[in-house]
Amino acid sequence: MPLDDYPPLTAASDRQQLKLSERLFATRRLSLDIAHPLSPEDQTVQAMDDASPTKWHLAHTTWFFEELLLKPFLPGYRIFDDRFAYCFNSYYNSLGERHPRPKRGLLTRPRADEVAAYRAHVDENLRRLFEAPIQEGERSLIEVGINHEQQHQELMLTDILALFAANPLRPAYRTEAPEPAALEGGAGEWRGVKGGIHEVGHRSEGFAYDNESPAHEVLLRDFRIFSRAVTNGEWLAFMEAGGYQTPSLWLADGWAAVEGEGWRAPLYWERIGDVWHQMTLYGLRPVEAARPVTHVSYYEAEAFARWAGARLPTEFEWEIASLGEPEPAPFDFARLLPSPAEDGVSPMFGGVWEWTASAYLSYPGFKSLEGPLGEYNGKFMCNQMVLRGGSALTPDGHIRPSYRNFFYPQQRWQMTGLRLASNA
Amino acid sequence: MPLDDYPPLTAASDRQQLKLSERLFATRRLSLDIAHPLSPEDQTVQAMDDASPTKWHLAHTTWFFEELLLKPFLPGYRIFDDRFAYCFNSYYNSLGERHPRPKRGLLTRPRADEVAAYRAHVDENLRRLFEAPIQEGERSLIEVGINHEQQHQELMLTDILALFAANPLRPAYRTEAPEPAALEGGAGEWRGVKGGIHEVGHRSEGFAYDNESPAHEVLLRDFRIFSRAVTNGEWLAFMEAGGYQTPSLWLADGWAAVEGEGWRAPLYWERIGDVWHQMTLYGLRPVEAARPVTHVSYYEAEAFARWAGARLPTEFEWEIASLGEPEPAPFDFARLLPSPAEDGVSPMFGGVWEWTASAYLSYPGFKSLEGPLGEYNGKFMCNQMVLRGGSALTPDGHIRPSYRNFFYPQQRWQMTGLRLASNA
Amino acid sequence: MPLDDYPPLTAASDRQQLKLSERLFATRRLSLDIAHPLSPEDQTVQAMDDASPTKWHLAHTTWFFEELLLKPFLPGYRIFDDRFAYCFNSYYNSLGERHPRPKRGLLTRPRADEVAAYRAHVDENLRRLFEAPIQEGERSLIEVGINHEQQHQELMLTDILALFAANPLRPAYRTEAPEPAALEGGAGEWRGVKGGIHEVGHRSEGFAYDNESPAHEVLLRDFRIFSRAVTNGEWLAFMEAGGYQTPSLWLADGWAAVEGEGWRAPLYWERIGDVWHQMTLYGLRPVEAARPVTHVSYYEAEAFARWAGARLPTEFEWEIASLGEPEPAPFDFARLLPSPAEDGVSPMFGGVWEWTASAYLSYPGFKSLEGPLGEYNGKFMCNQMVLRGGSALTPDGHIRPSYRNFFYPQQRWQMTGLRLASNA
Amino acid sequence: MPLDDYPPLTAASDRQQLKLSERLFATRRLSLDIAHPLSPEDQTVQAMDDASPTKWHLAHTTWFFEELLLKPFLPGYRIFDDRFAYCFNSYYNSLGERHPRPKRGLLTRPRADEVAAYRAHVDENLRRLFEAPIQEGERSLIEVGINHEQQHQELMLTDILALFAANPLRPAYRTEAPEPAALEGGAGEWRGVKGGIHEVGHRSEGFAYDNESPAHEVLLRDFRIFSRAVTNGEWLAFMEAGGYQTPSLWLADGWAAVEGEGWRAPLYWERIGDVWHQMTLYGLRPVEAARPVTHVSYYEAEAFARWAGARLPTEFEWEIASLGEPEPAPFDFARLLPSPAEDGVSPMFGGVWEWTASAYLSYPGFKSLEGPLGEYNGKFMCNQMVLRGGSALTPDGHIRPSYRNFFYPQQRWQMTGLRLASNA
Repeated sequence: MPLDDYPPLTAASDRQQLKLSERLFATRRLSLDIAHPLSPEDQTVQAMDDASPTKWHLAHTTWFFEELLLKPFLPGYRIFDDRFAYCFNSYYNSLGERHPRPKRGLLTRPRADEVAAYRAHVDENLRRLFEAPIQEGERSLIEVGINHEQQHQELMLTDILALFAANPLRPAYRTEAPEPAALEGGAGEWRGVKGGIHEVGHRSEGFAYDNESPAHEVLLRDFRIFSRAVTNGEWLAFMEAGGYQTPSLWLADGWAAVEGEGWRAPLYWERIGDVWHQMTLYGLRPVEAARPVTHVSYYEAEAFARWAGARLPTEFEWEIASLGEPEPAPFDFARLLPSPAEDGVSPMFGGVWEWTASAYLSYPGFKSLEGPLGEYNGKFMCNQMVLRGGSALTPDGHIRPSYRNFFYPQQRWQMTGLRLASNA
Repeated sequence: MPLDDYPPLTAASDRQQLKLSERLFATRRLSLDIAHPLSPEDQTVQAMDDASPTKWHLAHTTWFFEELLLKPFLPGYRIFDDRFAYCFNSYYNSLGERHPRPKRGLLTRPRADEVAAYRAHVDENLRRLFEAPIQEGERSLIEVGINHEQQHQELMLTDILALFAANPLRPAYRTEAPEPAALEGGAGEWRGVKGGIHEVGHRSEGFAYDNESPAHEVLLRDFRIFSRAVTNGEWLAFMEAGGYQTPSLWLADGWAAVEGEGWRAPLYWERIGDVWHQMTLYGLRPVEAARPVTHVSYYEAEAFARWAGARLPTEFEWEIASLGEPEPAPFDFARLLPSPAEDGVSPMFGGVWEWTASAYLSYPGFKSLEGPLGEYNGKFMCNQMVLRGGSALTPDGHIRPSYRNFFYPQQRWQMTGLRLASNA
Repeated sequence: MPLDDYPPLTAASDRQQLKLSERLFATRRLSLDIAHPLSPEDQTVQAMDDASPTKWHLAHTTWFFEELLLKPFLPGYRIFDDRFAYCFNSYYNSLGERHPRPKRGLLTRPRADEVAAYRAHVDENLRRLFEAPIQEGERSLIEVGINHEQQHQELMLTDILALFAANPLRPAYRTEAPEPAALEGGAGEWRGVKGGIHEVGHRSEGFAYDNESPAHEVLLRDFRIFSRAVTNGEWLAFMEAGGYQTPSLWLADGWAAVEGEGWRAPLYWERIGDVWHQMTLYGLRPVEAARPVTHVSYYEAEAFARWAGARLPTEFEWEIASLGEPEPAPFDFARLLPSPAEDGVSPMFGGVWEWTASAYLSYPGFKSLEGPLGEYNGKFMCNQMVLRGGSALTPDGHIRPSYRNFFYPQQRWQMTGLRLASNA
Repeated sequence: MPLDDYPPLTAASDRQQLKLSERLFATRRLSLDIAHPLSPEDQTVQAMDDASPTKWHLAHTTWFFEELLLKPFLPGYRIFDDRFAYCFNSYYNSLGERHPRPKRGLLTRPRADEVAAYRAHVDENLRRLFEAPIQEGERSLIEVGINHEQQHQELMLTDILALFAANPLRPAYRTEAPEPAALEGGAGEWRGVKGGIHEVGHRSEGFAYDNESPAHEVLLRDFRIFSRAVTNGEWLAFMEAGGYQTPSLWLADGWAAVEGEGWRAPLYWERIGDVWHQMTLYGLRPVEAARPVTHVSYYEAEAFARWAGARLPTEFEWEIASLGEPEPAPFDFARLLPSPAEDGVSPMFGGVWEWTASAYLSYPGFKSLEGPLGEYNGKFMCNQMVLRGGSALTPDGHIRPSYRNFFYPQQRWQMTGLRLASNA
């Protein structure tokens, strides 16, 4: 975790102010780097209701800084285009009316180059903001804005994959693909973890979202967790054993999804002749046995675990087990796939988002932030499941033991996989 | 709780065998009593996908005994009609193909009198079963069958209400209505509960569902719970304060439901002139301020709690707080509404099902039963919220501290309400 | 056609007044006869949105007389129940709000016996109306009311079939089934009809709907029409030739229906082992080759005609060709299937409703009636196709050359078939 | 009508071959001119299922020439990209599998510049084709290809409008907007037309679609047709008179659309303060009273006619009345709105597509073409209504008395209006 590098939020030394600004503009730059291989067309289209166009992500993250930081804190700030708030507000009821989510892909205007100009305008004003000492309130908002844009960076990548996977030409987003993995990733093993009262949630001084707080104690039983994520090779075995045809393995809502959606394999898998392939950001590739399985729903993860005679870990089991796990390698366009397991091990951070058995709910004593940021996390605490760990697509500084990602159990377009747990 | 009256499942004395049989046939009789005021038409129609026809409930609970008990355990049992398994299997994939749930209301045949004959046939054979000593396996199945039928008895009542509420004539199911409640139910008060490690789940020898086990320890903080359920009077205040028009009070999915469904009041409320009325099993009645609010979704309950500056209790807080609460009065056709609060108190058992803040998930170490009964509870452990307490419609012997009811957060046709909690 | 028996609407002799009353009460009685084999359950349920419950038909036709005849014309008439107008108005915007069509099946109240009492009340008052001389305006309305109820009689039968076909028990509505038909119905032959200017539409003095007027001249080419309707045997050949798998045979909207609905055979056909069966009002029967095919949509009829190298006749070709065709046998509960072709001939009247190539549009100079009856036909003149001929389920007095039935091209639950035409 | 300029299809002189080629490449060029003001983003997005992206139109019309002309007729032709057939086939079942219509907007690849290269490749090969004498079969296909592309040119314009109207920025497609019209267009008058036997359909030697043939005689009554199309001013009067609130004016399916879709004005009208505005290809403009109303459905046209005490003409009345009408002005980017009525007159050609009272059906003796072109028109002959006249967006050479356009009665995104007729 790069958390240690973060300036303590309470400090205000010049050096750290500088570091904040460096991180800010590095983040802003990475968004453009992500968009770089895309044509204006690619940046504009919305693959499905759950996804957003790249251009929309670029503009929305910019509006976030304009609306929450520049408007209130930069004297004399000139709004770039006052119609953009309507276009690029995502879901903040407290910040006014907005364009309907499923229609984001209709926004061919502003054009990609106009959004680029919007970003430049806001970035320039963000630089001006740093000409004066940054106040504590501003610092917090900048920190939130960085983290917010990082979340959207991962979404940009998953939404691009959704778009390209829907294209019969199966285009590649990038070409610097990793080598095929060795055939097998190793058998793996169970690792025991002692139960008892553990503290979970966010405790360090670094940035964290409100949904990671308050830190609190939980009571766990002894349990075991596996040394690697479930691999594609294991998933193929599940498929060959009739996993998608056996209702007794599935939750009722999961089986309804299997039947209603015709699921027969993970999202983005397609069979060409005798060989299963997988659409990736590097285009279509044969499925590699040793890599963690990705793009499975909670329903599929849960059914697999039942088939395997195991279960998913709870989010707290996962968090405790992850303490001491190595930090992931830095984000790298040449590594947009989870690394294959090696010698039966795959790390808990930075491979795939791992579904847990925990519903996304508030921690005891949770309080939403005041104001618009109160809509950031809390209002989604229903019907979703917690994922932990971070994926190969997760930007640096966005991975930590207490981090809680959350998606609906039927969703599959994120880089989601699983790791097995069992009772001791 | 009538649990103490239950014969221990491990005992086998004649006296207790007799008691089991008495409870079985009393249960079977109550189902007929519930159906009694209904015409064959009323028994046949399905009010909506979530509801089932009375006739279907009567036949399904009968098929349950036939399929799981008489077929395997009564030598020489003659199946009443081998086409009924297809018609009246609810959701047991392991017991074969079945009629689609949303089409249960198309089954005008078998007629109500034919279903009555089916029940008589099965009851007679159940009596024959008792002529020999009941074995332990049979005893368990009979116990499950009784509890299963009791659950359907409550559903029969809620489904009838759904049907009659959809009828422009607003017919009354029964006429022996309770007197209007006194105007106010009293202010109520917060009751403090100490945190720490508590044991929850099913521990007694009486019957319980698999989802109540295993009993296990949980770690709670100190908390407070209110002395009565939220009343209609309070709900009217919430409505008048614009509760249904204020997105910041709602979960995102809840607000989508408010907008998509046009919710402006609890289900079954309608305004006639200046007066809010409520459709009940006794027909249309003016809303009574002192009675607990009913027929609200989890979304509404959660929004109300936020508006009130409080929260919903977790299921474990609720369970611990309910220990020592009085048993509810016996089921009574003259009391099919939750009793009004008196002096600021309404009991935790037998008024309304109280939404908790807990998602319906398995307990640590949970194991589904083997065989078809494994489909009873476990496969629904996703996307639903736990309710506790039991309602005025809940049959006797079906209420206990560890009992976990569960519904989807948008569902409103059950007798669902809420009780507030807060941090200490 | 029994049209000749009808009293001229302009006459007013006592004899004819008597005949009007006789026809009225015979019609009212027949509705009860149709309902007679049905349980209250059967009478209440709505098989699908397009269908209505028998009980609803019985009440709606009664309300029609009450609303349009008794209320305005019978002094001192007491409305049976003033809430029934809301329940039993079908689609007359000018007559007030009404219960939504797809929810007619929720009306378990009024019960079947209460609807019977409603009918008796209205019938008794209709008798009182005849105690005074019937005025011309009343006579017209009675005539419309008779014809209206006759239309609903056919709908009652088709809606019952839809209900029973949805029941896994496949119940029989009646048991007096006709004998199986001889194996083949004969080859049939083309019959030439001379073109030129022909007069079409309603010209006699008998009753006709407004949509049959004004009579007018049309210009036809020479054409040929086949001596019998398309038979089940021919339809099986179409199926075996891959008719349902060959997009080039179908209209675009038709092919979308084939794919969207999974059509592989006429409605109500099901294959049991190697033998195609057909659900009928007499229960499930093997498909009989010599009987006219029934329960096919316009799309299917049109595709069959193309496959056969022919076409459907226009409604005017059909009308001209039908002049001089024999009147059908009287309505008979022992003949609720179209009679098999014999020696290559099946009559144009009283077998199946025959889809024509004509869209349902107004005749030149068409004027809707004033008042509520103006909503009877004219507002449906869009998106539907004309059918001609009348089926085995059509009541007496409801079949004539100028009669225009109309349904949407995808609808299949009426007794619909086809007869081929071709250019001379 | 520019039809007279067309080379007779049977001639083959060098001069006319030249003219065919000139028209071909002029048509190809116009498509690029239409796309010219659009960014790659604008060209890629699909506004709704009925519409297609500009880029898709550009590629589809190119594929049409490649597939039907170059592949079979140009020796040695190299297919540009064999995956494009899947991407850009519209609805020709006989030409293989294809990308689903509602997902055309997901095709960000091939990019706009790649589609431009595809067009250049095909154009170059079309030029090569003209190096040898053009055979009769080729000539016909080129003629079809020109007309096909012209149809798509109009669709490009209407689909762009749909896209820009869905954008909250309300962008203008072009800026060379016509001056606001004079306030009123004049009262207008009824013009009588004599009935009798008239010949309709395509008779000249110029190009026409199969659906205009065979020419045939029809029998018409005397009728009257109005000297101008219905204007925006009249439509405002209809709205103010409660036209959208009066069910008795509407067809049943039309009223369902009004209620279901919430129609209160023509498509693209929006009220800003007290003034109705209309989104156009020139951006948002105040509604001008004298211009013909546009973007109304058949349902609205039909209801307006009833409200006005008139009716829509049949397609044959329209065709006969249009004989001798002036040819429209050439297509002009500065005139993408229907010209205002002047002195009570608006021409029948080139203003708006005028809904007729005729369903789109085949003419007597109609035969679809053999091969893929047989899918061009015939398979759509159901559920649609005929429009006549051509709009301000219709390319030159695409307007003639016998031309039959057709859309579903609920569709509004074409430049559709109406002209009243009445009985003599």
